[in-house]
Amino acid sequence: MNLVQHLDYLFNPRSVAVVGASNIPGKWGCDILNLLLTRGERKVYPINKNRAEVLGVKAYSSIREVPGPVDFAVITVSAEAVPAAMEDCVQKGVKTALVIPGGFAEIGGDGAKKEQEVLEIAGRGGIRFIGPNCAGHLDTFSELFTAPYLPPVRKGPVSFVSQSGNLGLVVLAMGYRAGLGFSKYISSGNEADLHFEDYLEYLGQDEKTKVILGYVEGLRESRRFLELAGEITKKKPVVVMKVGSTDCGARAACSHTAALSGSDEVWDAAFKQSGVIRVEEVRDLVEVALVLLGQPLPRGKRMAVLTVGGGLGVIAADALRGCGLEVPLLSPATVEKLNRVLSGRWSRGNPVDTSGDISYPCLLPLLEDENVDGVLIAGPVWAPAGFSAFISTPPWERDNLADLEQLAQAIEEESLRNLDATMELMKRYQKPVVLSVWVTDDVRSGELYKKLERNYLTPYPTPDRAAKALARLVEYSEYLGIARA
Amino acid sequence: MNLVQHLDYLFNPRSVAVVGASNIPGKWGCDILNLLLTRGERKVYPINKNRAEVLGVKAYSSIREVPGPVDFAVITVSAEAVPAAMEDCVQKGVKTALVIPGGFAEIGGDGAKKEQEVLEIAGRGGIRFIGPNCAGHLDTFSELFTAPYLPPVRKGPVSFVSQSGNLGLVVLAMGYRAGLGFSKYISSGNEADLHFEDYLEYLGQDEKTKVILGYVEGLRESRRFLELAGEITKKKPVVVMKVGSTDCGARAACSHTAALSGSDEVWDAAFKQSGVIRVEEVRDLVEVALVLLGQPLPRGKRMAVLTVGGGLGVIAADALRGCGLEVPLLSPATVEKLNRVLSGRWSRGNPVDTSGDISYPCLLPLLEDENVDGVLIAGPVWAPAGFSAFISTPPWERDNLADLEQLAQAIEEESLRNLDATMELMKRYQKPVVLSVWVTDDVRSGELYKKLERNYLTPYPTPDRAAKALARLVEYSEYLGIARA
Repeated sequence: MNLVQHLDYLFNPRSVAVVGASNIPGKWGCDILNLLLTRGERKVYPINKNRAEVLGVKAYSSIREVPGPVDFAVITVSAEAVPAAMEDCVQKGVKTALVIPGGFAEIGGDGAKKEQEVLEIAGRGGIRFIGPNCAGHLDTFSELFTAPYLPPVRKGPVSFVSQSGNLGLVVLAMGYRAGLGFSKYISSGNEADLHFEDYLEYLGQDEKTKVILGYVEGLRESRRFLELAGEITKKKPVVVMKVGSTDCGARAACSHTAALSGSDEVWDAAFKQSGVIRVEEVRDLVEVALVLLGQPLPRGKRMAVLTVGGGLGVIAADALRGCGLEVPLLSPATVEKLNRVLSGRWSRGNPVDTSGDISYPCLLPLLEDENVDGVLIAGPVWAPAGFSAFISTPPWERDNLADLEQLAQAIEEESLRNLDATMELMKRYQKPVVLSVWVTDDVRSGELYKKLERNYLTPYPTPDRAAKALARLVEYSEYLGIARA
Repeated sequence: MNLVQHLDYLFNPRSVAVVGASNIPGKWGCDILNLLLTRGERKVYPINKNRAEVLGVKAYSSIREVPGPVDFAVITVSAEAVPAAMEDCVQKGVKTALVIPGGFAEIGGDGAKKEQEVLEIAGRGGIRFIGPNCAGHLDTFSELFTAPYLPPVRKGPVSFVSQSGNLGLVVLAMGYRAGLGFSKYISSGNEADLHFEDYLEYLGQDEKTKVILGYVEGLRESRRFLELAGEITKKKPVVVMKVGSTDCGARAACSHTAALSGSDEVWDAAFKQSGVIRVEEVRDLVEVALVLLGQPLPRGKRMAVLTVGGGLGVIAADALRGCGLEVPLLSPATVEKLNRVLSGRWSRGNPVDTSGDISYPCLLPLLEDENVDGVLIAGPVWAPAGFSAFISTPPWERDNLADLEQLAQAIEEESLRNLDATMELMKRYQKPVVLSVWVTDDVRSGELYKKLERNYLTPYPTPDRAAKALARLVEYSEYLGIARA
């Protein structure tokens, strides 16, 4: 059984036991059991020495007494009781496990010894396990959830390995808000047995995973990581936030998951060489995943900025240049085409400042321009009144302004049609179109917003954020040899 | 009449005329008139050559025919008609004006000439004016709104001068979401007459303004700006986003508001010398304003990190160090105090990783520690279940867990009391306590969140953002000589 086959038992087990099952909400043994009982369809066995039933389900005093086979065991007992629990799992012939409690290598001394003991026991039985000192995992496709206290999670193409369970929660929550969907998430904890590299190998071949995100404090097999990443990034992007780059961060990382952080410059160079996209801030993980999922890989770094108003274009141009992208002059043919669809007062340059509104007809000439590899649309606030990038005529130039409700509906229908056409053109020309506009809450339930979200075209809040994400897309495209460097 | 007295007529006029008043929604002459008629209490005169009434209010064919005095005229006619309109204002003895339309210096040539003409006409009558090529202004205290298409705006202590009307909308919207309240906002446009510096001088002495934000593409009186800023920053902070630092940005800024941007390094040095806090990204304007309003100015840069879980603490420590702050070792006395309130598994260092929960009793020893100048609390996701930084005991260690509703209420009441006590201590010890936690939407209506918001303690979404804001607070405190550099 190779690693991938083995880890299939982690992500899609036929049967799960919860060692330390509990009736008390707030206890991991209760909350995880509850998740397993209410989501997905598989056999679930509560293990509890003292009770015949937990959460209304027949319990067993030991995992060894479970009648059928157990593919996967969730161990929620205290650190002291973990070695014995793992020994029972070995006896039972369990294939994979998840060890939730802390109190191991991250506290040093006795904890480290205990971790080694658990590792040896599991090794004897060929059990591969997540943790210890972690917060669970999930697979939205197999509907397996062992991570309680989660924000809502959408099914989708992103998988995320996090060396911090709490940061995992934040990224899942930010991702949900931005419209990202997740396939697998693993809080990897101390990585006593299964390392970041193992998950990476698994996700690299996983067809449900299109983008891999990682939060890394330290790597145990850095050479293997770089070899794996070098292979995987040829097929799908790997985005990593690597911390512990300062003295304090490294000290904290060490006491957190007993990881050694290594020199930051070495990491930078290694990531670059293996095509890994390294990000600086938490929100970058989500914002870069979005651009990778929603946009075609551009053939170059020359970006057109299309904006309703000066300042937003200045910010976009500054940010694009600051990230190493170009904001080229437009071809005379493009200027001519834009003259036909824009008022006399447009900027006649790049940024294309329409001095009025952004509309679909002025997006087309930019996508057609051979000097342009992609477009950043910088709008101000998308209030319920609408966001006009995908309409042909601003509302106030329409005849039927009197009937506002009818107008709003006509605008939405037209926007949806033009968005379809735009996505078709993005694909045909292989040019990204990244939106930046501040979205008010009440807009999020509208059809146009939902359609953008479904297609990973969720707008960035400000042009500088859109520019930064776009720069990472170009970086990846250059790495793949698709964009001219 | 000095500048300040004169600009009082801009921000709190007794009477306003709208030149170019219109009945057609979507036209500035309609939407601004509508704002003036529905908000605030002052005389409002529509001016329209062809109509006896506009929006149901008696209109005048010329501003010269208005019976009483006119303090302030909003000019919404086309660029071509602005000189004549301004001439009428001079005849009428109008004191201040706002010129909305574009088509002036930003398009060069004839436009620049026309702008000069308008400036000369206004000068003859002693009229000071905003614009042209701008999006209006507002004063929440006098309830004067000439900026339509605005997101909701709260009354409050922030004033904002923006050389881009569209960026202004974005910042107002972001500010609203973050709980910021605004006093005055000005979209300054081409600044033909009133310059950024004039608004700065006014806001510097304005008692309603506690923090001044600026979006700057270029300054016409840079020496005056620096002198003024140097004086004002002794009393209140000035936060500026200055763009146009790259070739493309500068080109775009020039065609936007005809501003020359100047070398970026020179600006950096000049801002630093005059105590101006320069920020890089749009969201920084809002996030730095928050920390300036909600936090005491610390006496140094040694920050304690208090976190529920490792990764968030590592990120916080890395980000603090990356911004030049310190994450010092804790004094033995503090470690001793924390031992008493935390479980055996806490990190015993800084970051204080509680390995369980953040709670009020472990915040106190940090505030008391002489080696600590401020605290960054890094929590994961604040879901409806609660955010425990201000409670004394985690929910699952309470006896009455069965009655969840009663428990939730008890936790909220306790949190509110402990938040009061914390704010008292922050003041007494002069130590900031900055929160970072991702907030789900449904939490925003709760009492604790609203109270945090009212006190400008709105949580930052991630620890890196909180650290960056805190660094700017320390920078300002060092400039004022309050923090040891």
